Amino acid sequence: LQYLEKFSFTGNIYSVQEGEIVFPNEPVLRVEADIIEAQIIETLLLNILNFQSLIATKASRMRQVAGDKLLIDFGLRRAQGLGGIHASKAAIIGGFDSTSNLYSAMLFDLNASGTLAHAFIQSYDQQVDAFRAFAALYPEKTILLVDTYDTLSLGVPDAIQVAKEMEERGHRLFGIRLDSGDFSYLSKMARKMLDNEELQYVNIFVSNQLDEYIIKSLLEQKAPIDGFGVGTSLVTGKEDGALDGVYKLAMFNDKPRLKISEDTVKILLPGIKNIIRYLDEEGMFYGDGIMLENESSIKEIYNPNNYLQSSRVESFLFEPIMFKVIGNGKMVIQNKMPKEIAVYCRQRLNSLPDEFKRLENPHLYKVGVSKNLYDLRSRLIQSYKGKERIEQRKR
Amino acid sequence: LQYLEKFSFTGNIYSVQEGEIVFPNEPVLRVEADIIEAQIIETLLLNILNFQSLIATKASRMRQVAGDKLLIDFGLRRAQGLGGIHASKAAIIGGFDSTSNLYSAMLFDLNASGTLAHAFIQSYDQQVDAFRAFAALYPEKTILLVDTYDTLSLGVPDAIQVAKEMEERGHRLFGIRLDSGDFSYLSKMARKMLDNEELQYVNIFVSNQLDEYIIKSLLEQKAPIDGFGVGTSLVTGKEDGALDGVYKLAMFNDKPRLKISEDTVKILLPGIKNIIRYLDEEGMFYGDGIMLENESSIKEIYNPNNYLQSSRVESFLFEPIMFKVIGNGKMVIQNKMPKEIAVYCRQRLNSLPDEFKRLENPHLYKVGVSKNLYDLRSRLIQSYKGKERIEQRKR
Repeated sequence: LQYLEKFSFTGNIYSVQEGEIVFPNEPVLRVEADIIEAQIIETLLLNILNFQSLIATKASRMRQVAGDKLLIDFGLRRAQGLGGIHASKAAIIGGFDSTSNLYSAMLFDLNASGTLAHAFIQSYDQQVDAFRAFAALYPEKTILLVDTYDTLSLGVPDAIQVAKEMEERGHRLFGIRLDSGDFSYLSKMARKMLDNEELQYVNIFVSNQLDEYIIKSLLEQKAPIDGFGVGTSLVTGKEDGALDGVYKLAMFNDKPRLKISEDTVKILLPGIKNIIRYLDEEGMFYGDGIMLENESSIKEIYNPNNYLQSSRVESFLFEPIMFKVIGNGKMVIQNKMPKEIAVYCRQRLNSLPDEFKRLENPHLYKVGVSKNLYDLRSRLIQSYKGKERIEQRKR
Repeated sequence: LQYLEKFSFTGNIYSVQEGEIVFPNEPVLRVEADIIEAQIIETLLLNILNFQSLIATKASRMRQVAGDKLLIDFGLRRAQGLGGIHASKAAIIGGFDSTSNLYSAMLFDLNASGTLAHAFIQSYDQQVDAFRAFAALYPEKTILLVDTYDTLSLGVPDAIQVAKEMEERGHRLFGIRLDSGDFSYLSKMARKMLDNEELQYVNIFVSNQLDEYIIKSLLEQKAPIDGFGVGTSLVTGKEDGALDGVYKLAMFNDKPRLKISEDTVKILLPGIKNIIRYLDEEGMFYGDGIMLENESSIKEIYNPNNYLQSSRVESFLFEPIMFKVIGNGKMVIQNKMPKEIAVYCRQRLNSLPDEFKRLENPHLYKVGVSKNLYDLRSRLIQSYKGKERIEQRKR
């Protein structure tokens, strides 16, 4: 595990592109290898894919509601142990602008940013002296934290005073940060106080237990907020702390393999599979089709759990979304940095219709299987039902 | 962060013992250092304490309801990235018996254990041959996974057959594992089938989206289950993926420091503090008192947010619970392994009355402050109120 993302492997790994949106029932990864190689990397791959997909998805939900406001990752202190390292990377992939996690910023070339801490302010006898010292140190990007004693009666007035002093030296205060209280009320009051002093250019940032729902609500209330610092719920995926991706044997010794289990949704799709994405006339995503490797184009996709539900797809445009990532132990695609993946991720999400992206009761994205794949699974299930009957007769 | 738990530090760190239960408002750590040293380790300490306390607590809740049944950590694949490494350690501290996370087992000397995988079974044409091969490899601790095709009609019968073959070789099948379906029903049926074949000694293990509530419910239904493999909810702390511990400046240049904030619960306790635990006549924990460092015994503890609520504690037995951990950059206590800490943790939890440990609506553990500490905070708040009034007159 120390060599996370540096494992060596002699088989082939196919994956949807990093940063690709993950849909239910979609095979995002296909591993072809000797069984022992495939098994050794199982936990590692699941850990990486499950966690980083979870956090990138959470970040993209916040980006979706935040529009072009600044989004900064403040999560490391509340992250799940060392999980914070890759949480910050995934946050950038999902659409965050920067992170206060310097270690991850160094590892993955992420934008680093932050503001001053309460402790810095508390260590001065007068808050305004702390603000002055900080502004002198970072004149270009000064953000002053204004809630240490009282936001409106002490914090914002001291920030205004320092902003005026900065103007005299030819600098501009970049922003103030609210870290407690009602952000809708406080941001409106602070905006008014700043504007009254001709400080329209000073940005207002907020931080404190934010998530996509609170960000959406604040912006709907027309709170004049320019950026959000998000911690806990971003880096832990709160309220959903895990993405339950699985890794299953589907082919061995040239024979498709089945797993049935007691829970219908845990029945796997046997055989080596490929996946194609269907697009509507405007190039928006319509649905995905999972088929056997030797199938190229199919006419209809079926609900994997109900043969009676199907959609004709033959007239749709389509594109392959599975690519070889590792071949014979070597990476065969270009290694991209998180910032580049973020651009790709954003482009792809733009092609996903809004009804799938809404926060409340989203429409379910269509993922279907080919008739051949459906029938193969049915045949395999039947052969086990046959074994059951034989077993039962024996006893 | 690569050097997590190996940081060097030249100040002093006081902590409640590792494995100690953490109560709201309790200072679990006191750092005395140059401000830059204290600040550099802030995020690291918060990350370690918040996450590992969260997971150890989650594990101890499961241990509490599981009695002496076996509890095995299966979480790494669903853990939050590298957070899984310390999650497994914390799970053992909280009362788990073993982990399937081999890397953490090696790092922290934890008991490692596991069962066979679905893929192993699927790679054989006949399930019974997979069971035979596994039993031949691990004759001492064979656990057979019985839900790959159908638990009761195929899985348990094949396990019984292999158990009988093992008996002929002088071995005993250690257990079967159910991984899907209704565990109450399936465990009762499987127990009956095993007992009918004189296999009373074969244990029944279950795994699949378990948590303390499901474990409690299964045992209340008298499901004959001998052990639980717990993954996601254990290693992510689901539904509470973060413990919101904070780290605040309380003293600087010999002056107690305050932070007020807009939210009452975020007002900190100023000054260097000590903490004492009060015990009732049976030695059970009654409550904790937070006081200034120079106070030794106090008569009464006060609700930190309401002076009108107080408890007399002068007649109680008490014990110190804050100890120096690091002095002048060196660890001054003996380094304990997780297994030892687990024993200590269990002992301590036994001294916490049941009403604080129940899962539904637990009684709140009493944490109060001394009058001197309460008054110090009030005086500091008043002095900032004074500043506010002066500011307001100026404008």
